[in-house]
This record gives sequence, structure tokens and C-alpha cells, in this order.
Amino acid sequence: MISWNNLDTLSSYQELLKTKDSLKLSELMAGENGAARVAEYAIPMAAGLTYHYAAKKVDDAILEKLAALAGEAQLSGKFRELYNGAVINTGEKRRVLHQLTRGQLGDPVTADGVDKRSFYKEQQDKIAVFAGKVHAGEITNENGEKFTTVVQIGIGGSDLGPRAIYLALENWAITHDTLKMKAKFISNVDPDDPVGVLREVDLPHALFIVVSKSGTTLETLTNEMFVKDALEKAGLDASKHMLAVTSETSPMASSSGYLAAFFMDDYIGGRYSTSSAVGGAILSLAFGPDIFARFLNGMAEEDKTAACPDPMKNAAMMDALISVYERNVLGYGVTALLPYSQALSRFPAHLQQASMESNGKSVNRFGEPINYKTGEVIFGEPGTNGQHSFYQLLHQGTEIIPLQFIGFRKSQNETDVEVKGSSSQKKLCANVAAQIVAFACGKDDENPAKRFAGERPSSIIIGEQLTPESCGALLSHYENKFMFQGFLWNVNSFDQEGVQLGKVLATRVLAHNTDGALKSFAELLGV
Amino acid sequence: MISWNNLDTLSSYQELLKTKDSLKLSELMAGENGAARVAEYAIPMAAGLTYHYAAKKVDDAILEKLAALAGEAQLSGKFRELYNGAVINTGEKRRVLHQLTRGQLGDPVTADGVDKRSFYKEQQDKIAVFAGKVHAGEITNENGEKFTTVVQIGIGGSDLGPRAIYLALENWAITHDTLKMKAKFISNVDPDDPVGVLREVDLPHALFIVVSKSGTTLETLTNEMFVKDALEKAGLDASKHMLAVTSETSPMASSSGYLAAFFMDDYIGGRYSTSSAVGGAILSLAFGPDIFARFLNGMAEEDKTAACPDPMKNAAMMDALISVYERNVLGYGVTALLPYSQALSRFPAHLQQASMESNGKSVNRFGEPINYKTGEVIFGEPGTNGQHSFYQLLHQGTEIIPLQFIGFRKSQNETDVEVKGSSSQKKLCANVAAQIVAFACGKDDENPAKRFAGERPSSIIIGEQLTPESCGALLSHYENKFMFQGFLWNVNSFDQEGVQLGKVLATRVLAHNTDGALKSFAELLGV
Repeated sequence: MISWNNLDTLSSYQELLKTKDSLKLSELMAGENGAARVAEYAIPMAAGLTYHYAAKKVDDAILEKLAALAGEAQLSGKFRELYNGAVINTGEKRRVLHQLTRGQLGDPVTADGVDKRSFYKEQQDKIAVFAGKVHAGEITNENGEKFTTVVQIGIGGSDLGPRAIYLALENWAITHDTLKMKAKFISNVDPDDPVGVLREVDLPHALFIVVSKSGTTLETLTNEMFVKDALEKAGLDASKHMLAVTSETSPMASSSGYLAAFFMDDYIGGRYSTSSAVGGAILSLAFGPDIFARFLNGMAEEDKTAACPDPMKNAAMMDALISVYERNVLGYGVTALLPYSQALSRFPAHLQQASMESNGKSVNRFGEPINYKTGEVIFGEPGTNGQHSFYQLLHQGTEIIPLQFIGFRKSQNETDVEVKGSSSQKKLCANVAAQIVAFACGKDDENPAKRFAGERPSSIIIGEQLTPESCGALLSHYENKFMFQGFLWNVNSFDQEGVQLGKVLATRVLAHNTDGALKSFAELLGV
Repeated sequence: MISWNNLDTLSSYQELLKTKDSLKLSELMAGENGAARVAEYAIPMAAGLTYHYAAKKVDDAILEKLAALAGEAQLSGKFRELYNGAVINTGEKRRVLHQLTRGQLGDPVTADGVDKRSFYKEQQDKIAVFAGKVHAGEITNENGEKFTTVVQIGIGGSDLGPRAIYLALENWAITHDTLKMKAKFISNVDPDDPVGVLREVDLPHALFIVVSKSGTTLETLTNEMFVKDALEKAGLDASKHMLAVTSETSPMASSSGYLAAFFMDDYIGGRYSTSSAVGGAILSLAFGPDIFARFLNGMAEEDKTAACPDPMKNAAMMDALISVYERNVLGYGVTALLPYSQALSRFPAHLQQASMESNGKSVNRFGEPINYKTGEVIFGEPGTNGQHSFYQLLHQGTEIIPLQFIGFRKSQNETDVEVKGSSSQKKLCANVAAQIVAFACGKDDENPAKRFAGERPSSIIIGEQLTPESCGALLSHYENKFMFQGFLWNVNSFDQEGVQLGKVLATRVLAHNTDGALKSFAELLGV
């Protein structure tokens, strides 16, 4: 029997709170002891990835308490409830089924009279067939010419994840000769966004995917009109250049304005929709359906490891447990996400959404106020770039900010150059190894300005190479981590009530139905 | 007489600490009172910008205390010392002269036997002449063909600022028919970065600018070799495709491997170098020297307003004072930077560096430990994108995160579309106005999940349009804000000792001179 309780009602959490912050990373990580820790504090993941937490402020005693917390909070049982189709999104009274877009972890889930795994698979298959025809030149523009570019029109979850994954695999795909179409993205209601993107697009050979689950997202509908306008001005037939990704009940689903429509549903939140048709359409068109299938396989494999009840074998669960320890016991409020891979340049922006929108809540899943901290601020940029930017504060600032590194032994393209006796890839990897130890151990110095206090905890996920499979596994890891964090905090990680008020007030501004400060600001901004 | 004292030794700061956090934004901003506040709490800046702080948790009593703090901390006098050439960078024993790249605020500054304003101006003029010849086809590739693309090779300060400003003005330049050359950027030592960029570049017609003040930045030298390799493999003469931006004493300065070399010096920190040759070369080549000159004029004008001793008339000073109030009295640790302008997509990443590398320090300018919080974490993405991402946490999370909005009445390109009775630009502006009030005032609701506590303070800089001038004024505002913050915290905002340890350890890893945890991680990463 699953019971949903606030974190601070759990006795294992109260035990954890009694832990003194007495562990010194500079001691734990020193000498052969440190080497043994690196070997021991590691959890294998899917697609050849490994999660390393040797540089976290935990020892066997704390890990035991964290395992007790995992048990008392029924993390594994709650995940099982979720993938078996329970109504986990209590606020909106919805199931949470994004895992079914990439596999079947538990029992078949039937909703709306259909088997949902089959439904999602069917959409994938439809997309694969459609993409195949586009690539083969069977579906073409009005002049019988092949489409060469695909442009996603979407915002938030319909933009960040697909964009991050496209960028993650674009150069890998070129190297492996499987980039079928170049992809671009339009998201912002700022008209300079579509203007800028359309300038780089060969309109007659561009296919646009309009992505909105509800079919009512104002930014997206506005940008759709913007693009239709541009197509018409270019003498093109917009309906021959546009696809829809939406829910079956949305106004977009039955419109004749699209070449085709692919469906998702209310059981998939925007920020978890990369593995649904939302990511599937653009990634299948850009890379080919087989590459998207490999990406989904990586996700499915990693979902399986997240279903393991033992946190010592479950990287997502361990990552979540340690993060809650850092947030609620050690009191850290920000996490930096630092992939040592240029291809992951927008992965932090996507995870920023996935995490902060999921767990930035002040009420529990029953809508009751809670008395502890929840979701952290997430930010990050790729290394080594970040080292020449904000790392100064991470090393010597007055706040401790836990770090999440990602690194790969091989570059994606395997073109490299030797300078001063080492390749670029070796330099990249040497830097991330060095940073872990620098942050953990610090360095004393006579001059306090050159002193590094250390004691900055970090984890790292290490893989062989960023491929469709490992990219999928990475994304799945974080999705599942944020879910486990939500279970621990007892919040609903799948709604987003906090976005409503701004929408309501913006509508009032546009209707000139305002007064006071709002009216003043609207006037200053020329509305 | 200027005296440099820790923040907590100032009696005006002790007075401020006694302030109770009793102001309620939801009351201050309500009704006609709110409208009056919006009118009153505003400071004109250069280039038609205005800094609005009505939605900050201050009233006249607190503003008076902040003004007293500005006086006791001698903010204006310290800035005067700086621009008159004092050795403000105490750690590295250097002057801090970046303002001289765009104007002369005070007395002539002579160093190394030359007038520094003249030196910087001379470099600008050299760049302008060079760029003019490239644009006119007088300087060409080895086949007498015009260069069409310019690629910056640099990292950190040699990358983030120039890249942010290029992106800020790229579409404006196209609209105003003044984009002379497309610009690209290579920064990361990850070999996938140069591979990806070079795939998008027409090598025979590309000009590369290698930017490193010391001429020894390992990432940059490595990427320079990477590019030379690619040029040679393409049968091109690398020395006909490369420029250097460096200091006169660097090994790059005297190399014959470059078409030309332009200089900066040790008095300009990387993160403050956008207005020097570091930004000047690429921006002049991309947009034309006259556009870069307009950008510098915007900076110079805004520097002048920052020199005003009265914080009520000095936006950078007021912004800094309020931020220190929020950081040290109210206890907030993170600031979100939210430009409602897609063109400013990488402006937050640049300011993240400029702020966090400048003020993420735990010792004062004399190298003594300090007992209060310094530099905040800065992150941000353009609106309205962010609204569909991390705003959930900003509105309803358990932490209060102050917000800095930027908005413009007009889009850059003035192409727009009407949907549901309003243009995209009006929607954009309506949203930012709505967010200010939503964050400040919140909204009650029977259902706690739909409740917005409000009391989230924000400021906004409003301008007519993002142009070269207003873009320059914006950048100058933040540079000067971070400087004033540093003065208040009594830290040296112009060194970066915190980046050293990682470099040392990375060198050891590459030399296989490691043991313990570092050796283990290096092995796991294949080094």
C-alpha cells in the first residue's frame, strides 16, 4: 500500500536531519582512500554510462540512512504506481505516462478505451512512415521538390527538449551520414525570433511542425500565423508545408491546414514530451526514424534501471536522494549542470525547465502548504567554457553550489588535433577530472586570495561517447531523478499552476483592462 | 581620501541591517499608489533606456539608507579613482581601464609611457581601416576573393561578450542592410566545437580572429591549431586567413602567422573586453566600424550616467545598492536575468560570467577573509520562453529569486503579425508588464496550489528598441553595476584566482603526474 507523506513526517528523514555536516571531502578524496571511493561509489546505467558520486558528501553511514529514506518514502513503489498508470498528477487528475512512449515497464495501461503503449507506438510508426516518404521524395513541396529543412514551432516543453536533443546529435548525425534534414526552432513570441529563423531557412523547401498539446498556446499559434504569412507572401501553399503535433481533442487535430497530424495526449507533460511525437516528429525527420528509435531504446533501458528498488543500483534514485540531502539537510539551493560536451550546449536549459517547473512548488500533492525547501535552481553551460566564466564563484564564492558533471571518453566526430602532447579530447577529459578534485579537495595557500576551501560536492556521469542511445539514457536519468525528488518532497511534479497568473494578467493588458501599476508598466512598454 | 572598508564595518550598513523586512510589494504596488511608484522610482539612462525599480522592496526610508551607504562606501569616489587610472585590481597590481576604450571620463591616464585612451583609440582606428579594406575587397584571400565570414577563436571573456553582442545586433544589422560578414564563434576545447563550426563555414572565404590576451590560453591555441590544420588540409594558406587580438607582449604579437594583429593590454580584464579590440575586431568586421562606433557611443554615454554621485540619478549604482540590500539584508542568493528580446539570447550567459567571475569572492581586496555573502548566482533566458520553463519555480517555489527584466517597445525588425487583435510585439510587452505585477502582487486563491504569494521583487530596464546604442548602454550598465557591487563588498572584482587550481591539476593529469582519486577519474575518462 502506497502512502504519500510529507518529507518531514518521515522518521528516516528526521534521522537524516540529525546528521552532522562533519564529512570532509578533502579527507575522503585524499590518497588511496579516494581511489577506493571512486571505484566503489559508482552505479552502472544504460548505454554504457556510469553515475559516480565519490565526490559527494556521503559515506556508508549516510548512504544507509538515504536507503532507509528511499524505503520509507516508497520511491520504488511510487514509480511502479506511476508506470502502471495511477493518477499521479493529482492536481490535474491525470496519469503520467511518458515512459510508455519508449517502453513498457509494467502492466498494460488502458485509458480512453485504448492501450496507451500501442497508441504512442502507433504515432511513432505513423511518423516513421511519413518521415520515410519525405526523405524518399514521395512527399514533396507543391513543385514536387524535396524538403530539406524542418522547423519546429513550439515553446517550453515543445521546444527545449527537442532542441537540446537535436543539437546533441546534429554533428554525430553528420559524421555518421544520417542527417536527413537540418532542423531549426521558433519559440519566442518576440517577432524577432521568427524573423531571424526564417532568414536562415529556404522557405520553398521547408517543412514546419506546429506543436501545441492544447492547440491554444498563444505564442505558438502566433508564430504559426507568422510563418503562414511568410509562406503566402512567398507564393507558397502553407497547408503543403505544415504538420501538427497536438492532442486528438485539440482544434488543430481536425484542421485541414496541415499535411499530417501526429498525436500525444494529456498524460504527457510538455517537459516530459521529448520521447513523444513532440520530439519524435522533428527528430525522425532530421535524423531518420531509426536514429530516433535508438534514442528511445536508450531511454527505455535507462528507465529499467530506474525501476530497481535498490538505490545502490539505481542512479536516478541515488542522484535524487543525494540532492534532497544537499537541499534539505546541508541547505544548498542551487545546482550547476556542467556537461563537458559542446553538443550538450542546450541540455542544461532543458533540464532547467524539467526540474524547476516540476519541483518548484510550495504545496504538497494534496495542495497543502509544506514547511521545507523543494526544487533547486538549475543552471549550467558546457565545460571547458564555464571554467572561463562562472567557475570562479563556484570555487571561491561564499555559497556552496553542488555540481553535476557529464563527460565522455570519445568525442562525437573523432576529428582531433595534438597540441603540446595531447589531443583536444584528452584536454577536455583532463579538465573535468581536475575540476572534480579541485572542487572537492581545494588547496591551501599562504595568500587567502589563492586559497581554495574545497568541500564543493560533485557527481559525474561518464560515458564512452554521446550517441543516440547514451543521449536517451541521459535524458531518462534526469526525468526519473526529478520524479524521485518530487516523490521525496511529496509534491506534484507534473502540474504547473505557477504559469497561470502571468497569462491572465497578460490577457488583461492586451484587452486594456488594467489599472494602477500594471497599467503604468503597460503604457511604458507601449501596449 | 578614499578608504576601502569591509561592508560590515560601515555604520550605514549596520543601520540597513536593522531594517525589518516589513514592506509588502502587494500593498506598495496596488492601486493608484502603485502607479505613482512606477512614475517615481525610475532613473533615466543613456540611449533612451530607463531603469525602473518600483517593484523592488524599497521605500523612501530604505532609499535614504541606501544613499547613505553609497556615500559612506564612497562609490562615486572609487569609480573616479578607477577611471582616473588607480591600481584598483590590487591582487594583480593593475589599473582597470576598460572604460577608456569607449571614452574619457576623467583625467588622461598614462601607463607604459603612453596615453591609454589614445592607445585604445589607435587600435580601434587600425581595426576600422582593416575592416574597411576587407569589406572593399582590398584585403582578400589568396585567390583575390572577398572574405564573407569571420570566426572568433577565444574562450571566456574573449567569447561570451562578443558573441552576445553579435547575436544582439545580427538581425538588426540585416534589417538595416549593414551585415558585412556573418560571424561564428569557436570556444570549447571539446573538438566537437570546432568540427561543428567549421562544417558551417565556407573555409576559403573565412577570416579567423585568434583572441588571447596572454597568447597562452590553452583552449584557444588548441583551436587555432585545429583551424590551421583544416585550412592546410583544404590547400589554403593559414597566415592569409588569420588575425590576432592579443597584448603587445604576448608571443602572438610578433608572430608572422597573422594577416594583422590588434592589441589590448593587462588593464582590461577578459570579461570587460567587449569594448576593446576583443569585441572590436569581430564586431567591426561583421557590422562595419561605424556600427561598432555607435555601440561604443552607447557605452560611453551610459558610463557618464554611472559617474553621477547621486544614486537616485545613477541606475548602475542604484541597481548595485538594491542588489546588496537583497543579498545581505534580505538574504537572497540568486538573480534571474530575463530579457524580453530574442536577440539578447546570450546576454544572460555573458553577464553570468561578468558578475560571477567578478564578485564570486570570499576575501576582500586586501586578501583578507570576509564574513558576509558576496556575488550572486546569475542565470536567465529570454522571455517569453522562460515563462514556459523555469518561471514556475520563480512564482511558486520555496525560495525568493529577484528578477531583472529588460524590455523594448519596438522589435528590431518591425516585421510583425496580428493575431487575436494584437501584434507579437504587443504580446511580448504585455507579458513582461504582467509578469512584474504577478511576481510582486501575487494572487490569493481558495486552493493553495493556485495561490501566488507574490513578494517577488523585480526591476526592469525599458527602451525604445535594441539598437547599437542601447545595446552598448545596457552592457555598460551591467559592467558598472558589478563594479559598484564589488566596491560595496570590498572585493577585487578584477582578478580571478579561482580559475587557477583546475588549470594546475589538468596539467598534472595530462602529464600523468597524479595519484589517488584524480588518477582514478582520469583513467575512467580515458586520459
